[in-house]
This record gives sequence, structure tokens and C-alpha cells, in this order.
Amino acid sequence: MQYSERILKTPSSFIRNILKVTDAEDVISFAGGLPNPISFPIDALRASVDHAITENGSRLFQYSSTQGYAPLREYIAAKYQRLHGLDVNAEDVFITTGSQQALELIGKVLINKGDGIVIEEPGYLGAIQAFTLSEPTFHGVTLENDGLNLEELEKALQQPNVKFIYTVPNFQNPTGLTYSKEKRQQVCDIIAKYDVALIEDDPYGELRFQGEPLPYIGADKLENSILLGSFSKTITPGMRLGFIITKNKELMQHIETAKQATDLHTNIFAQYVIYDYLANNDYTEHVQKIITLYKNQAEAMLDAMQEFFPAHVEYTRPEGGMFIWATMNNGASALDVFHKAMEQKVAFVPGDPFYTAKTGVSTMRLNYTNATPEIIREGIKRLGSIL
Amino acid sequence: MQYSERILKTPSSFIRNILKVTDAEDVISFAGGLPNPISFPIDALRASVDHAITENGSRLFQYSSTQGYAPLREYIAAKYQRLHGLDVNAEDVFITTGSQQALELIGKVLINKGDGIVIEEPGYLGAIQAFTLSEPTFHGVTLENDGLNLEELEKALQQPNVKFIYTVPNFQNPTGLTYSKEKRQQVCDIIAKYDVALIEDDPYGELRFQGEPLPYIGADKLENSILLGSFSKTITPGMRLGFIITKNKELMQHIETAKQATDLHTNIFAQYVIYDYLANNDYTEHVQKIITLYKNQAEAMLDAMQEFFPAHVEYTRPEGGMFIWATMNNGASALDVFHKAMEQKVAFVPGDPFYTAKTGVSTMRLNYTNATPEIIREGIKRLGSIL
Repeated sequence: MQYSERILKTPSSFIRNILKVTDAEDVISFAGGLPNPISFPIDALRASVDHAITENGSRLFQYSSTQGYAPLREYIAAKYQRLHGLDVNAEDVFITTGSQQALELIGKVLINKGDGIVIEEPGYLGAIQAFTLSEPTFHGVTLENDGLNLEELEKALQQPNVKFIYTVPNFQNPTGLTYSKEKRQQVCDIIAKYDVALIEDDPYGELRFQGEPLPYIGADKLENSILLGSFSKTITPGMRLGFIITKNKELMQHIETAKQATDLHTNIFAQYVIYDYLANNDYTEHVQKIITLYKNQAEAMLDAMQEFFPAHVEYTRPEGGMFIWATMNNGASALDVFHKAMEQKVAFVPGDPFYTAKTGVSTMRLNYTNATPEIIREGIKRLGSIL
Repeated sequence: MQYSERILKTPSSFIRNILKVTDAEDVISFAGGLPNPISFPIDALRASVDHAITENGSRLFQYSSTQGYAPLREYIAAKYQRLHGLDVNAEDVFITTGSQQALELIGKVLINKGDGIVIEEPGYLGAIQAFTLSEPTFHGVTLENDGLNLEELEKALQQPNVKFIYTVPNFQNPTGLTYSKEKRQQVCDIIAKYDVALIEDDPYGELRFQGEPLPYIGADKLENSILLGSFSKTITPGMRLGFIITKNKELMQHIETAKQATDLHTNIFAQYVIYDYLANNDYTEHVQKIITLYKNQAEAMLDAMQEFFPAHVEYTRPEGGMFIWATMNNGASALDVFHKAMEQKVAFVPGDPFYTAKTGVSTMRLNYTNATPEIIREGIKRLGSIL
């Protein structure tokens, strides 16, 4: 059997392979990227299953519409209107099988082999994987503390056949960095000059434990704005529900065709249940619980880094989300350090898979959402001893 | 914005567009392809949600493995061992977001632009859509009453870069036809001479209301056998659970990479619930209820056709599944007839979208699973009056 070029190019998950090693019981792992189970409102979801079935019967179980469950789309539109002042309606919202699928569908409808994608460097590994299926040319733009490097962005946009820019403006994965208000405006101004789409992927935006919420870069401003959201980080990732918001009707039509050919429609049972949960519970209060937890965990990790990391290691100070990014200024290979760390029974993700064209990097991603402050301190202490 | 070539080629659903017209309340519609809601064991599934949550807690809600929930994969493997004598284990089973996604993933991992796909003519519309995303060259092979035309099959397999053959061996969509035992063996013998995969898509196989079950064409016989199954026709399509069975490890590895890049993993909540349902209920008895219902409905339609259709209209006599296929031997255009039928408030799907390279055909697909025998008789009477 001869396989397709696209699949031979697609990286299988570096992280999943690492997790096979780091999952051992006696390892303190900062390698994962899982929400804390506290973020799953299990009892309320169980009640919503019952309630939604009682109210809607067989409609939870039958084939359904490709765009997604209308009341859920209306809820999402109303929320983005209310919280972000966006002029969006249910017809501008499209439900996907997690926001990972949103990335893959967008690649499908926009990218011909060799077309350009501008991506943050370092950037979200899952996006690199999803887009690679369309065989693009990646143009990495350095992600600085306040957002994309503007000179590099401008240069990247001048490359041939660039179709879109992919960003995670809030508490980025892997760095935890957030674009400043000024940088958002500057990035928007630059993009407005080109016929490209802007993808703002915002799975973590609600999980802000410090500072003020900032306006989106391009939503409601750029004609080809695509905003992605997810219920994975605040309700449940297991039900795989994400969404695309765009006011570009032609793009939306193509996404619908792609979705239908790909998996017909998103699990409708899950859509009814999540909608029922949102309609009948205090979601804001629930999210506040997650924020409080993650704030404590992030602080525990930052305090421990302050105490135990040598001076040549720099790290980001996230205002929300799930990750801290550390850079070893002594040029050490993160992969080498990973193996040494495993001997000390502590794990992280070496930076390599977050770059489209670099290896042997000196960076690492550390997740803090799945350990107690005490365990975090112990893990960072062990890690500090070998850095 | 410039869109990708692949999406511009992909047909948006002819059927969905038709359904918008045929969904009116006073129309008798044979156009759909929905399982009867009797096939959803709602109360048992509701109990399984509760039970699965009680037993497994947060595991239903967290990110999960790309291959799928291990006990569900074991259940499927054991069932195919028991019922079909196949030598398969859990590691040969991969859970997908409905079997539509299985088609799309297989296209992704095997097809480069222009590569050949051999497909039944007429063939399953959803498969044509899914595969078109990979921009293949389709080679249609006439589906006769007992299976593929062997001469055409042999000729199609000699075309350049043919990667696989797609078949629905039992109660095919759209024709309702089933491959004979002899034809299965002959098709297998021909395929064995070529380095191609055989996809056997079998969503309806359990819904046999007449005759004896037949062995699969290639499963356990051909090195590159790919068998697809689904819970959509016997438990619920809304939860989008299908599966791929193949013993080709390299292929399975590529499918896993593609799946991960596409949507990470299939809804794990649904996998726990369906597994719990299967483990704690009499599935065979449940399927028997569906079979009894569909048998009555199919007979009602065939009896009415005998009574009301003119002699120039031929039709298939399915031994199971959900569809009858009619051919007007007077050369009438099915699309023209569709519009006339809508004036009589009766609907079907004109044959056109089931062909990769034909239009203006004289064939039609009729679904019988969603109306009572009385309504079916009335609808066929109306349709007969204009044929």
C-alpha cells in the first residue's frame, strides 16, 4: 500500500508519545494539557441529560443539521454579543467536533497544496497537525511577550498565496502569552491591507485570573475574521464541542459542505445536553471556580520557579489559561533536559513540536492545571536541580 | 477570498437541498434516509448515561484516546469474531465520529490528487462526497443485481494509481441490492491480484429481514481489507459512532495520525454510554424489533408498487436495509418526475447524485423506514399515477 503524501508529512503526536512515558504513577507531570476535572460540572450535566431527553425525546438521537443545534448557536451568538459587543447572530455560528475540527475544516476549505499559512512561533501543536493535512507552506512569525513581531508579520503576509494567519490571542498554547491591546490593533491594521483571513482561536479566554479582558484582534473588524471557541476547557472536552464564528457567508457555506462530507454533523445528543446545562445553570459561577483553582496553581508554579530555577532560565507569567513557557538561556537542548528530568521523575513537553521549522530548541511547556500546589512545588524543585 | 480546489469540487448535498422542499407537513416523503425512531432505545440509553457516570465519573468528560474506548473496541472485536468468525482483536478496531468520518479518514491517508477510487455505480452519495475532498479520479463499476460487474471491475483496477474499491455489500445505499455469495468470492479473487484496499461499508448488515447472512467479501481474506460498521442504524445516529476494522497495522497507524489531526478523538461520553448500553441490554432483541418494522414497511411498499406502478418501472426487492431503487425504462428524467411528484405531494430522491459521472438518469431512491404501511401505500399510489 502506498499512502498519501499528506499523511506521510503529518507529525503524529510528539506529546502523546511523551505522555506514554510520563504517565507513570511516580512521575510528577507538567507535560499534559488536560483541564482539571473540577471543570466538569458532572452532576449538573447528568441532570441536563435527563431534562433534555424528557423535553426533546428522540430528537437527541436522530440525525441532525450540519450547522449545529439552533438554540445552542443562538446562545453562543447572544453571549458574544453581550460579553464582547460582537454583531453576530446564530447564522454566523457553526458547531464543530471540538475546535480541533474547526482548524481542520478551515484548512480544507482554504488551503491548496503549497499555500501559505502564517503561524505564531512557537505555535499550537494541534493546529500545526490539522493544517499539515492540507500540505501548506508555514510562515512562522515570532511570538513576543505582547504578540506577533510586526515586521516579521508584514514580511510573511507578502509571501505568495498566504491564505490565513493563525493566532491564539489569550494565554496562548504553548507560551501562556497574551497579546497586548496595542499589539492587537497593530496586527489588525496590518492584516486589513491583505486579502487573508485571521483565525483567532480562543479556548482559554474565559480562564483569565489576572488583568482585564481585551477586545479580539479582528472579530467585527476584519471582513475575513474567524473566531473559534470551545466548551472543552470550561465544561467538558470529552463531548468534543467547539464552534466557528464568522460573518463571511461564502466561507460559512464552504465550511458547511466540508463538515457534511467529513462527519455529517456534530454529536447532537451532546449539543442538547450542553445547551440545557448552559440554559439552566450559573455558568459564570462555575467558570469562577476553575479560575480560582488555576490561579492558585499558576502562582504555586511561578513561586517555585522563582525559588528553584537558576537565573539563566526565563519564563512567562500568564494572566490566565493553563501553561507557562520556560526558556533556558544557556542553550541547553530541551530534549536532553527532558531525559534528565525523567530520571528525577518530573516531566514537561520540550519545545520542539511547537515550531514548524526548528529542532533542538531550549524551550519547554509546563502545565499547572493538574497538580496540587504542593506537588507543583516539589516538581519544580526537582526540575530546578537539573537546569 | 480564494477557496481550495477540493472544496469547490465537493458537491454540497443534493439530498439536503431536496429535503428542504420535501419536509413540508403534507408531503409523503420517501426521500429521507433516517432510521425510524423506534430504533433508538431511549430509556435504556438514559439509564446507561446514569450508570456509566456512576461507574466512571470524570472519565466520561475528559480528553481521551484517539483509537477509542478500549472496552467498546473489545466488544466490537468479540462480536465480529462471534458472528462472522473474523480473527480480529480490539487493536484492529478504531472508533470514528460516525462511519462518514471513517470514509473521510481513509480518503485522507490513501488518496493523492488524481489517484483512483473504484466505486459502485450507483454508489453511496456520502462516500462520493467524503472521497471528493481528496480529489480522486472515480472509476464507476456497474452494480448489478448480484454485485459488481466483474469485467468492469477488472478494467477499473487496471487504471493508474487505483488505491481502493468502495463497496456496500449488504442492502446497498441507494439500491437496496446485496452481493450474492458467488459474486463476493469472485470479487475477492479479482481484488487479490492487485495492490489495492477493499472497503466494505456495512451500516445495514444487521437489518436483514429475508434470506441468510453472507460472509464479507474481503474481511480476513484480503491483506488490505477495511470493514466499516456503525451504531447509527441500530442504536442512534445522533451520537455519531462508527468504527473501522482492519488488520493492516501500518494503515491503522496512519488512520490514527489522521484522526488525531482531524478531531483528536471521538466523543468519549457517547462511547461510554453506548458500551454500557451494549453490555447491559439485549441488543439482539432490540434489533429484531427494527427488523420486524422495516420488513412490514418494505413489504407495504413493494405490494403497492406491484399494484400501482406501470410495467415500464422496474425495482429492486431488498432483503434488508432501508431503500428500494426504481428504474423507469421509458427513459424519463427522474428530476422531471421529481417535480411532477412534488405536485402530487410525494417525494423521493432522483438518482443523479449517486453517480460520479452521469446526470439526467431515470432512477430513483425510495426510503420506506419512516412511514406507516397505509401512508406508504398512498404515497406509492400517487407516485404511480405520474410514472
